[in-house]
Order: sequence, then structure tokens, then C-alpha cells
Amino acid sequence: MKIVALVGSLRKDSYNMQLVKTIEKRYSHLFKLEIADIGILPHYNEDDEKTPSEEVKQFKHQIAEADAVIISTPEFNWSVPGALKNALDWTSRVDRPLVGKPVLPMGVSQGALGTVRAQLHLRQVLMSMGIDAKILPPAGNEVFIGSAGQKFADGELIDEGTLTFLDKVIDNFVAFMKEQ
Amino acid sequence: MKIVALVGSLRKDSYNMQLVKTIEKRYSHLFKLEIADIGILPHYNEDDEKTPSEEVKQFKHQIAEADAVIISTPEFNWSVPGALKNALDWTSRVDRPLVGKPVLPMGVSQGALGTVRAQLHLRQVLMSMGIDAKILPPAGNEVFIGSAGQKFADGELIDEGTLTFLDKVIDNFVAFMKEQ
Amino acid sequence: MKIVALVGSLRKDSYNMQLVKTIEKRYSHLFKLEIADIGILPHYNEDDEKTPSEEVKQFKHQIAEADAVIISTPEFNWSVPGALKNALDWTSRVDRPLVGKPVLPMGVSQGALGTVRAQLHLRQVLMSMGIDAKILPPAGNEVFIGSAGQKFADGELIDEGTLTFLDKVIDNFVAFMKEQ
Amino acid sequence: MKIVALVGSLRKDSYNMQLVKTIEKRYSHLFKLEIADIGILPHYNEDDEKTPSEEVKQFKHQIAEADAVIISTPEFNWSVPGALKNALDWTSRVDRPLVGKPVLPMGVSQGALGTVRAQLHLRQVLMSMGIDAKILPPAGNEVFIGSAGQKFADGELIDEGTLTFLDKVIDNFVAFMKEQ
Repeated sequence: MKIVALVGSLRKDSYNMQLVKTIEKRYSHLFKLEIADIGILPHYNEDDEKTPSEEVKQFKHQIAEADAVIISTPEFNWSVPGALKNALDWTSRVDRPLVGKPVLPMGVSQGALGTVRAQLHLRQVLMSMGIDAKILPPAGNEVFIGSAGQKFADGELIDEGTLTFLDKVIDNFVAFMKEQ
Repeated sequence: MKIVALVGSLRKDSYNMQLVKTIEKRYSHLFKLEIADIGILPHYNEDDEKTPSEEVKQFKHQIAEADAVIISTPEFNWSVPGALKNALDWTSRVDRPLVGKPVLPMGVSQGALGTVRAQLHLRQVLMSMGIDAKILPPAGNEVFIGSAGQKFADGELIDEGTLTFLDKVIDNFVAFMKEQ
Repeated sequence: MKIVALVGSLRKDSYNMQLVKTIEKRYSHLFKLEIADIGILPHYNEDDEKTPSEEVKQFKHQIAEADAVIISTPEFNWSVPGALKNALDWTSRVDRPLVGKPVLPMGVSQGALGTVRAQLHLRQVLMSMGIDAKILPPAGNEVFIGSAGQKFADGELIDEGTLTFLDKVIDNFVAFMKEQ
Repeated sequence: MKIVALVGSLRKDSYNMQLVKTIEKRYSHLFKLEIADIGILPHYNEDDEKTPSEEVKQFKHQIAEADAVIISTPEFNWSVPGALKNALDWTSRVDRPLVGKPVLPMGVSQGALGTVRAQLHLRQVLMSMGIDAKILPPAGNEVFIGSAGQKFADGELIDEGTLTFLDKVIDNFVAFMKEQ
């Protein structure tokens, strides 16, 4: 199985990227994880949606080929980063590769709240008509990782409690993928 | 008085751009309107926020110098376009030029709803801590222009009922700007 | 098949009630529709959730017995009415009869927007952990009936275009119910 | 100065009620706090809005007479409790006592998140046309009290860090009230 990960933060030492890399390594026996580079996508423009740039084509193709998608997002101004919304906007048009695709939202923050507001909006966006993804139901599966400074070291998530919880969520997501 | 307009759509014949150009011309006796080019801004990256590109510097300067901001947005996937959110994300950091700045949200759609969901989220984003704008209160001032195909011609808003309503909203906004 | 309808408005001549009654009659060959009386439910109180009043017991039982739920809501202050949220709050605890239950949201308004903001929030609430309903995906299925004054007469929806659209949505919902 | 408090939870030992009682006592030198009983209000019904029951009349009068309002809410299903929304629905009609009234939102939860989603929606509802309150801007003023079990004892908030933070928020709110 192949999963594509979208990371909402573009900074080099992003905790959300570290989380995704932890998942790539820790669950390599369950699936292959590819990380999409949303930072190279141009801003969505309807004039170009039928003849998009190579970057957009490859990004949409990468999602279309995947069995599922993980989205790890920081919270910017009570919402998702513009760059992440932009990537989702591209997927919502023409061939629409996220329709019916299993998606697992998650997020890491330095503050206490673990991007809860960003993920609330993300779920709404993923549910909208054009995107229409299959979101993993939230019961037992909401990944809000706050206080990142205490839970990550050397580029990896190391907090035992969080890792144990993540094991369970990933198990649930893999089962959910198989049901679709 | 000077107002800066942000247009959420990047397509050449955008109705939201046409609305903003109609406002520029129709109310030129009340204020000078400048249209910011959000399409040239790079994706926000925290690593660069203290040493941003020239485009970002000029965009933030343009807002800082303005007396107020008008945001006209399409609706993408029940929310604002990524490119618009990205522009707002830049404003929310370091010098934060939108703090306390009067803002008037509006939007045009080809469908019936006039971007009501995009504007609902936009108001929330503008209210958030980092942005903290002074949004014109909605009572009597919600500009949802639906069925654009019937209300615009030759690059301009021509629907009389909508123009009369807009006159009133702009009056309210100018009064609101003066109160701040 | 049996469907329970929740109506968000309590006024006697509610358009949302008229819509539900139109559905009851027009699709009687497809399902039996029962209308729940949410107006008699007490305000939710955690102290009483394990020993609720008869009204609450019967309401939850009615939902548990149904194959699906239709919720028709007005918009109050950009959201659902308190009385409707209260009914949903009761369902989210102890036996939780809405978990996995197919739900079709809809709404009628006298203004143009057809309760789009109320339904946006309703979808979010229905998706939350405690309620966890199976909402009919929105593509092609969003029922926003605006300008009610022109579309209803003698206690019924009579607008042909809206009825034709409704026929399709109900077909989709019945198919969706069968898939669950 | 007089402040009216609305408490979103109706249970006897509600932490949100304990928070409000802590505020009543701790800041009695700054303002008199009255606690409104939203649990006795009937469900809002448009048919009755011009001739409401005594309970509704007194509730609206209490708000009209107050200099400001504090709302302390639990989170039910990613939103505010129905009973609280119902109280706000009543205020949004006819005499509309919340228009322009300073409001401070807050909330307590047993979990980690401190009702952040409920308050996000509450701010949106308070901002809507019919209610149109003056919400204390969120910067430095977001009161999310999580892990209540560790912060309250004998019916009072006793956590020193939280109390110190609350002192600052209340100072900001009193200053905000005076500016209006």
C-alpha cells in the first residue's frame, strides 16, 4: 500500500514534517509513505486548470496513484496554511483525485492546542463537494499533538504516550483504507 | 483616503476583479483604490518571515499605508482560495499590518450563494489573534453577489439593484473607517 | 423503510415543517416518515443523561428504530437553532442512536441563502465524535431552499424546479441508505 | 458596573459554573456579577418572540441592564450546548439586548482542549447580524481551561497560573468595557 503525505508547513525544521517522517519510518512494514512537495505548486488559477504546470500534474498524479492520504498541518490564524489550501484547491478540479480517497488529518503545534481549529476547518474543506474525500471518522482518531518542543528530538517524535496513541490511529486508518 | 483591495481569484476575467474595478471607478470621489497582486506572493514560510522577498515586503507595506482594506473573494471548497489565505498568513506575522485595520469582505459567484461560506470563514480568519482586523459589522453590509453572469457586462457590475445596495455598504464602510 | 424527520423551527407555520410534510406525502411509496417533536425535549443536562425524561427516551428510541434521519433547519444567527442543537446533544450521549445513521440535511429560508451557514455547521456537528452520523455527501445533494414565500402554498412546497431537484436528492438518499 | 454571566452547562457541579462563581468573588471590587439562569428559558419560537414568557422577558431585561456579558461554555459536539444557543437566539430578536454589548467568551473542560471549538463557533454566532455583540479581541484573552479536574477544588478555580492569567484577561475586559 502507498500513502501520500501533505505537510502544511514549509519551514525546514517543521514539526509536522518530523511527524510525517516518523510515520514513514515507524510504519514502513504497513505502507510506503511518499511526501508530496506542496511548496512548489503555483497558486491555483482557473485559467490553467485544464493545462496545469508539470508540478501540478505530478502532484495530482501522485495522489491519484496513492491508496490514501495523510495531511499533517500547523494552524495559521485559526485555519490551515494558504499553501495547504492551495494544494487542496488544485485537487478539487478537473480529474479530482481526492474524491473517495481515504484521508487522515493530523497536526503538531508548539502551543497546547495541537492545531484543533486548523483540523476542524480541514475536515470541512475535505468534505466539500469538489474534494469529497473519505475522512477517517474522528472518534478515537483525532491527532492533536501540542507542546511539540517536549515531544520531538533529533527530528523525530519520541514521546512514548503519543507514539502509542499514534500506533492505534494508524491501525484504525489502515483498517479504514481496506474497507473502502 | 486610500484603500487596498485583495482579490481572491487569479483568473484573467475574474468577476471579483471586475467588482473591485467597478468600486475603484464608481467611488473614486470617496477614496483611491489600489489593487494588490496576491498572485506574485510566494507561499508563506516561517523561515523567511523576518527576511521576506521584495514582493512580500511591498505587499505588507501597501497594506500598512492604506486606511482600509477590501477583500473580494470567490468560494473554493466552502472556504477562501489558498492564494488569499496565503496573503493573509503573511500579514499575520512580524509587523502585522492588518491589526486594527478596517476591512470590508465581499464576494461574487456564478452560482446563487455569492460566496457566503468563503466569507464566513474569512471573517473568522480576520478575527483571529495574529490578524486582528476591524471587520465592518455584517448587519446590512453582507455583500453576496450571486448569478454573476446576469449582473456583469463588459468587465463591470451593471445590475442596478446590486449597485444601489453597494452604494449603501460603501457609505457604511467609509463612516466605519472614520470612526476608527 | 422508516425515516425520522427533525424540524429545527418550532413555529406553527414553519416552512421547514411544510417541506418535511411535502416529503412525507410525495415519497410515501419509498418510506414512512415520522416527525419527531424536538420542542418537548428538556434542555440537555449531563446529570440526567442516564435517567432521562420520557420525552428524551422516546425521542432517542424513535431515532434508534429509524433507518435514516432527515433534518430540515432554519438558520438562526449563522447556525442551527438552539432547540435543534439540544436534540442532537441528547443523541450524542449514552446509547448514541445517531452513530452510523444515514442523515440528510436540508433547510428553507425566506431570504435568498436557503440556510447554507446553518447546514455548514450542522454537517460539522453531525461529523463530531459523539454523534458520528453518516451524512449524505454534498455533491448534487445540497438542499438550500431560499425565497420560500414564492415556493410554498397551502402548506406545501409547490415550486416545480425545486420538487424535481428534491426527487433526485431523495433518490440519492434512498440509494445511500441501502449502501450502509 | 454590572456583568451578567451565562453558563452553558446545566449540571449541578458544572466547572463552568464554578469558574463564574470564582470570578464573581475574586473580582467583586471591580464589578457585580449576576448569573442568568438559561435553563429555565423555553425553546425559542418565532410565534412567541413578541409576547415572550416572563422568564424570557426577565432574561433579556437582565442583559439589557448589564454593562457587559461573560459567557462560560462547555463544548458539546464541537459546538456550544443547545441551551446556550437557545438563550442567544432569544436575544437576537425584537429588542436585541446584545447588540453592541461587550462580551467575554470563556470555557472549561475536563479534557485538554478547554472548549476551543465551542468558543470558535460562539465567536461566530456573537458576530452574526442579529446578535452583533462587541467581543473582546482574542489576542491574549482566550480562556481555554483544560484538565479541570486538576485546577478546581471545593467549587472554585484554585490553579495559580490560571488565576494569574484570568486576572489579566479580566483587566483587559474591564478596560474594553470602558472604551465602548
